[in-house]
Amino acid sequence: MTETITRVIDRINSPEDLKKLEIKELYYLSDEMRKLIIKKVNTTGGHFGPNLGIIEATVAMHYVFNSPVDKFVFDVSHQCYPHKIITGRKEGFMNPDYYSKYTGYTAPEETEHDMFKVGHTSTSISLATGLAKGRDLVGGKENIIAIIGDGSLTGGEALEGLNNAATLGSNIIIIVNDNDMSIAENQGGICNLLTELRENNGDVENNFFKALGFEYYYVADGHNIEDMIEVFSKVKDTDHPVLVHLHTIKGKGFEPAVLNKEPFHWILPNTLDKLNQPASPQEESYESITKDYILEKVNAGEPVVAMNAATPGVFAWNKEFRDKLGSHYVDVGIAEQHAVGMASGIAKRGGKPILGLMSSFVQRTYDQLSQDLALNNSPATLLIFWGGISNADATHLCTFDIPLISNIPNIIYLAPTCKEEYVRMLDWSVNQKEHSVAIRVPFEISYSGEEDNTDYSILNKFKLVEQGEKVAIIALGSFFNKGKEVKEMLKESGINATLINPRFITGIDKDMLEKLKTNHSLVITLEDGEINGGFGEKITRFYGDSEMKVLNFGSKKEFTDRTPIEELYKRYHLTNELIVEDIKKLI
Amino acid sequence: MTETITRVIDRINSPEDLKKLEIKELYYLSDEMRKLIIKKVNTTGGHFGPNLGIIEATVAMHYVFNSPVDKFVFDVSHQCYPHKIITGRKEGFMNPDYYSKYTGYTAPEETEHDMFKVGHTSTSISLATGLAKGRDLVGGKENIIAIIGDGSLTGGEALEGLNNAATLGSNIIIIVNDNDMSIAENQGGICNLLTELRENNGDVENNFFKALGFEYYYVADGHNIEDMIEVFSKVKDTDHPVLVHLHTIKGKGFEPAVLNKEPFHWILPNTLDKLNQPASPQEESYESITKDYILEKVNAGEPVVAMNAATPGVFAWNKEFRDKLGSHYVDVGIAEQHAVGMASGIAKRGGKPILGLMSSFVQRTYDQLSQDLALNNSPATLLIFWGGISNADATHLCTFDIPLISNIPNIIYLAPTCKEEYVRMLDWSVNQKEHSVAIRVPFEISYSGEEDNTDYSILNKFKLVEQGEKVAIIALGSFFNKGKEVKEMLKESGINATLINPRFITGIDKDMLEKLKTNHSLVITLEDGEINGGFGEKITRFYGDSEMKVLNFGSKKEFTDRTPIEELYKRYHLTNELIVEDIKKLI
Repeated sequence: MTETITRVIDRINSPEDLKKLEIKELYYLSDEMRKLIIKKVNTTGGHFGPNLGIIEATVAMHYVFNSPVDKFVFDVSHQCYPHKIITGRKEGFMNPDYYSKYTGYTAPEETEHDMFKVGHTSTSISLATGLAKGRDLVGGKENIIAIIGDGSLTGGEALEGLNNAATLGSNIIIIVNDNDMSIAENQGGICNLLTELRENNGDVENNFFKALGFEYYYVADGHNIEDMIEVFSKVKDTDHPVLVHLHTIKGKGFEPAVLNKEPFHWILPNTLDKLNQPASPQEESYESITKDYILEKVNAGEPVVAMNAATPGVFAWNKEFRDKLGSHYVDVGIAEQHAVGMASGIAKRGGKPILGLMSSFVQRTYDQLSQDLALNNSPATLLIFWGGISNADATHLCTFDIPLISNIPNIIYLAPTCKEEYVRMLDWSVNQKEHSVAIRVPFEISYSGEEDNTDYSILNKFKLVEQGEKVAIIALGSFFNKGKEVKEMLKESGINATLINPRFITGIDKDMLEKLKTNHSLVITLEDGEINGGFGEKITRFYGDSEMKVLNFGSKKEFTDRTPIEELYKRYHLTNELIVEDIKKLI
Repeated sequence: MTETITRVIDRINSPEDLKKLEIKELYYLSDEMRKLIIKKVNTTGGHFGPNLGIIEATVAMHYVFNSPVDKFVFDVSHQCYPHKIITGRKEGFMNPDYYSKYTGYTAPEETEHDMFKVGHTSTSISLATGLAKGRDLVGGKENIIAIIGDGSLTGGEALEGLNNAATLGSNIIIIVNDNDMSIAENQGGICNLLTELRENNGDVENNFFKALGFEYYYVADGHNIEDMIEVFSKVKDTDHPVLVHLHTIKGKGFEPAVLNKEPFHWILPNTLDKLNQPASPQEESYESITKDYILEKVNAGEPVVAMNAATPGVFAWNKEFRDKLGSHYVDVGIAEQHAVGMASGIAKRGGKPILGLMSSFVQRTYDQLSQDLALNNSPATLLIFWGGISNADATHLCTFDIPLISNIPNIIYLAPTCKEEYVRMLDWSVNQKEHSVAIRVPFEISYSGEEDNTDYSILNKFKLVEQGEKVAIIALGSFFNKGKEVKEMLKESGINATLINPRFITGIDKDMLEKLKTNHSLVITLEDGEINGGFGEKITRFYGDSEMKVLNFGSKKEFTDRTPIEELYKRYHLTNELIVEDIKKLI
């Protein structure tokens, strides 16, 4: 058996090779890919369940359609591993030396089989509609196929795309990969209607997709390659919008992942080797502190509600926590815009929403932050997690939230530097009624060792941590400890620098900045994110008409892609040594 | 008749008063309100068709529900005039002295009957879902009612909201005010399904709203008050999500507005007095230049496609223009996210999309600008109209597009100062293949009188317009002429300032800025928008380690609300006199 399996994949170097196979070989190939993906992802970490669930569908797609002439657009694209294997990139899954060669998402720089770099959800239908329209404008004839998971269907852009694609009037094929899951449980009316469709073999009284105008096909077993080949062959070269609804099983072929889908959506390296080990006791973290705080408030009968958009795992809001919260927990599904609007409504009606968002996904809500929330001064609390410079994929960078949030009027964006400040800020935010508040939760826990009694309703008051002279270091949030270290290093050069913890991202402490003029000639700002449009530039502008020199440290305006953090720190002059060097040049 | 009519409205000072009326008096009241609205809007300008279409529905709503205990959330809220009249603000429509007293949108500062300040579309369902959830958390019992037009239903947040509201599990009532129109023609599958519902009196094979999980009611005549009272009474105090679909006629009661809905959506003052006057010949404008350019390209067989999201009127893309373009015109409806994603797809498939967006609505597309467009370097052209400081409503400010767009990597944001530059930039953008480009189209036309031969593919090269000394004025886009004027005024004080036209918003010309150091001690930047996170701060940061002083001029980070532009210019030190004063203080 193993021999047979090995033989099939050895013959596959492009989608063309796959078309020559017999049906049973397509199944062998699927099994092989499944084993490769399990081994590879367990070694490197990555998206697990989504890829296991779409293997057979990907095989059938490539068997029927002709990539790269026909064009696939994978939504989020974290389920593109089988597609990568088929389209000339199998070494990234077969040879451990090449495990890091390819990104975990579609990437046009890797192959002509990928049209877009994609990592946020719900974009595929719009992108595909565009490809189809472009094709029609230049006189092409190919098939355009969007592959979108049921979880991604609830995102605004996907729904806007569905509405528009339905009336395109030419070839577009939307494959809904329905595995009854978002990242956590799927949510909302669309989830229910998909369930109804599955339970009735695609035949229901009120068909959402038909209502929009799609020709609709249902495949009950999205792991039956023949069934899918039959339907895909039928819809190939259609002259109108078609939607194919596949029922697949997330995690297919790896039982623990099928039984327990959420934790196997994305796994850390070596997860599968530790399945039977007891979970190590959780250490205190900003996530655990947040959960304790929320539970305490809910148990005290306060109308606190923990909200998120399909990513409870980012905040370690596990099932146990969610169950304890009951109606005080809301997961809106992938629908960040709605989450912010809903939070605003809850706050206006006396509830106390605490909405968790990953920094990279905040950018899906700009208009809602501005119009629904800030313009109305709705006293909601937003917790922004993971903000900072990292080695993340280009699609998941978390360096833009400061420029994004801090230039919107009315929002108070806070940057705690330690547990004590975080708890104080969170509690202040939840209990006040005047402001929309966001808190940038640091990644690593830190302690100041002293109680924070600050009244955060006195806005934009920076904390003078240590008075020095000549050089003042304004070190924001997760870079506060870096500021402390730089201060220590400067001592070696005889410089007793002033250290300031600004705490407020969205305003400057003019009094304190003014006072610095008396015995400082240089101010430096440190922020863990993009400098352009960020925190530091406001300080620089304040001093624009004075003799004060100012240096802003942070990341550049660029999309980096899995770049090691050490390399980025060097590039941005963010190592302590380089910061000190830059300071010394100016004094 | 007039006497009777006058009598009814005189008795209405709150929704309570309306509940005492007989049915026929409700009709009299509706007629009165219609006349008041026609007269008032023709005097002041404002939203016309939407308000005429919803009068009877508003009367029925207030008759059945108990505002402000029961809570109405009007989507976009430009159809809230009848609601304003009923809820204690009738003087704003009856007495010309008070015509400007109230905003054209819901405004909590005016009355407890308004929950939110709203002006962008598609937010009402999310806000209402939040109110309902807040109510449930604090143990309230009231009805929560969202009123949303069919055009707004295509927006992502509305669809996310529908999906989520459907499974709320408690009272929420969504009234779809279906008048078969967006701002222009309605677009997409949802438009078609509403048509099907209307044509079948609400009874169709595939009901989109039922599919999502709503209990569904159809009212064929949304001007029949008894019918609406009957249905609203039936759904009042429901314990689950309900959707009421009203068929109304936009512009009802004013025949020209019914026959020709788009131009009567929003009208200028005195429009109704000039109905039979021939249209004055159009003068050249950036809008006319853009249309000429697009038509020329399309006629030459190029795959150019003019795109927008339901606001062709903003760019003067009238019906004649659209008809000429045929398949080279795409209106995606209210779906800005999809528009950007689709533009990216078109560009990747060889088409040449030119997507028009009003500055205030760009903020609905941040994630798509970043992920769909910029990350993929899709060579689409975005035209950003109306960017700049104005006396607009708080909901429609156009001062945030520079901080928003210019801190996203990869996008080239250009600021032409005259027709010659605009045409050159547009043509360069449409014909290049490397960059996602946005152009900030000024409001008022200007001419330099000399051909622009710039190669804009050489990025971030500022134009030195006039070399001087001591003071350098970097005057961006629509503020270039202000820079010229300030330069002239400085001459009177013996200062021969340098004048620079940066043209690029998204990058700085380091060489030129470096050279300024030799014989300048002050640089000022002028930009027509928010300074925070904007263009000027990057210049200030560049000079942070030098002796150069820098002043940034632009608007503050704040929501202003119908504030006269003269007042804003004073507040921001943007009059030429105040700029010169600030300069003189520093040299």
